[in-house]
Amino acid sequence: MGIASRNPVTAKARAERFAIAAVYTDPVEAVAALRPDVVDICSPVERHLAHVRLAADAGAAILCQKPLAATLAEAIAAAEAARDAGVRLMVHENFRFRPWFRAAKTALDAGRIGEPFYLRSDLRLAGTVPTARHPEPWSLARQPFFRQMPRLLVLESMIHQIDVARFLLGAEPTAVVAMLRRVSPDVVGEDLASLMLRFPSAHAVLERSYATLGEADPPAVSEELRVEGTGGLLRVLRDGTTEIVTETASGRREERLDVDLDDAYARSYAATIAHFAAALRDGTPFETGPADNLRTLDATLAAYRSAEAGTVEPLPSPELAALLGIAT
Amino acid sequence: MGIASRNPVTAKARAERFAIAAVYTDPVEAVAALRPDVVDICSPVERHLAHVRLAADAGAAILCQKPLAATLAEAIAAAEAARDAGVRLMVHENFRFRPWFRAAKTALDAGRIGEPFYLRSDLRLAGTVPTARHPEPWSLARQPFFRQMPRLLVLESMIHQIDVARFLLGAEPTAVVAMLRRVSPDVVGEDLASLMLRFPSAHAVLERSYATLGEADPPAVSEELRVEGTGGLLRVLRDGTTEIVTETASGRREERLDVDLDDAYARSYAATIAHFAAALRDGTPFETGPADNLRTLDATLAAYRSAEAGTVEPLPSPELAALLGIAT
Repeated sequence: MGIASRNPVTAKARAERFAIAAVYTDPVEAVAALRPDVVDICSPVERHLAHVRLAADAGAAILCQKPLAATLAEAIAAAEAARDAGVRLMVHENFRFRPWFRAAKTALDAGRIGEPFYLRSDLRLAGTVPTARHPEPWSLARQPFFRQMPRLLVLESMIHQIDVARFLLGAEPTAVVAMLRRVSPDVVGEDLASLMLRFPSAHAVLERSYATLGEADPPAVSEELRVEGTGGLLRVLRDGTTEIVTETASGRREERLDVDLDDAYARSYAATIAHFAAALRDGTPFETGPADNLRTLDATLAAYRSAEAGTVEPLPSPELAALLGIAT
Repeated sequence: MGIASRNPVTAKARAERFAIAAVYTDPVEAVAALRPDVVDICSPVERHLAHVRLAADAGAAILCQKPLAATLAEAIAAAEAARDAGVRLMVHENFRFRPWFRAAKTALDAGRIGEPFYLRSDLRLAGTVPTARHPEPWSLARQPFFRQMPRLLVLESMIHQIDVARFLLGAEPTAVVAMLRRVSPDVVGEDLASLMLRFPSAHAVLERSYATLGEADPPAVSEELRVEGTGGLLRVLRDGTTEIVTETASGRREERLDVDLDDAYARSYAATIAHFAAALRDGTPFETGPADNLRTLDATLAAYRSAEAGTVEPLPSPELAALLGIAT
């Protein structure tokens, strides 16, 4: 086992913490020396394709951080590199492994709120704008590279919300429309975003703002989520609390789902990796293999086209539809 | 003073309640007999143009219920009829006269939350779907004609939310996109709607659902509203409570605005009529004269085109822009 990183200082600290002997600054050297069974790629997105190819050529199974690539063409190339090398590839998409979304999915699939027709996911906080508690904006202090990202909120964070919407509704969106805005002068990308996604039997409103003053201090445990169905309502609060309210002829019934909120953020990463390992071991499908995850990325990138052109963008995009052999 | 109504029973009851002597079933007869200074039109929308013309020909000032017409062409014809007859016309738009929205507007115009960049307005309740408390759906029991309206939520109710967004932001939307859905089998029009409006320096998300189970029983006092600005947050809760949260270098400050919630629904009608009367008396402009209100109607009708065609619709529409002499 080993770590390869451009930054030997952080790599060494990480290696020591997890008792990993080998540290490299060159991933080519690392792969040649380690001959790994598995490569976990968490390099910057613009390096993903090169690193997927490197791992694929070495015959390693691949877990790659989202977004798989910054363009659909590169993401498809990464998927094809893995396929051609006969190695398995999963995109690391941890939000759907958060315990409240797993509990929500189980409840939805059991028909607890009937047929869902509406989903809303929203998170609003002061991340790119200063407050008295955080004179240096909270998100920018934590992730300084946010300042320079030309595509910030949707590509970095709302990609999770899109993925969770697909996951929970168990369906593919047929269109997306987005309105984006840059509010803080300290970023170049959007820090305010509202998206609507049309699904075959529902629509979803996904929103995120890091420019909102007056809400609870970050970090937030979860987006606020609601799914409305023909039999009731499912909601996730900002602290991860998950509730179902059902309505029948005999009355309203509220129930809090059993969700372990302890250390849920870290556990969602562990659960993602555990899913990867279990699927490799058992030969079962990844939830977020390329065929699945290209849909999330496609909707994410289409949101930017929508905002730029002032259009409703069809999904899958013509580019992805052609690849999938789907008529649009 | 007199009342004209197709239904002499309800007209007579109303006349007795307000000590009005004259009741007619034919508005032509009523106008001929009464020679009124003012006509308050609250007939079904498809009769508005005829009744505006009738009142205009009689030289009466006109207060006409929203929507002014079901099509932009008819609304423009109504405005032209009033103009050509030299009588004044105001559209009865009571939501912007609700006391919390007046208080919000005053606070926004005073710069209390800085520059607004986002507005959200939402109301979700069980109106077209049954609950244990309302086995006959609440909205359908109250307004049985809702069942047959081919255009329900946006034209009937969200037109108010569009008007309030324009009022509060003090700007005109440049585009609208809508996703609509019919959930209840007991209606033919949409009972679930999500709209996004783009403004020059903000965007707005307007939503409404009468198909939502699990929320507080109707009626609701107000839509939930939030306006986010560069200096803080303004929010109106479902009970009309209105709060401002500001953020400065010295900290967060929460303030509840002084809003009299007593009987606010009825008072918003009285305030609308009082504005009409005062503007007539003083010769001052109506807030919601045709030039203003055509913008609200235009966005309302464009929302349907957006939902039907799957497009983002520019505002003003080409039709209204041509009338206004605006290049699009």
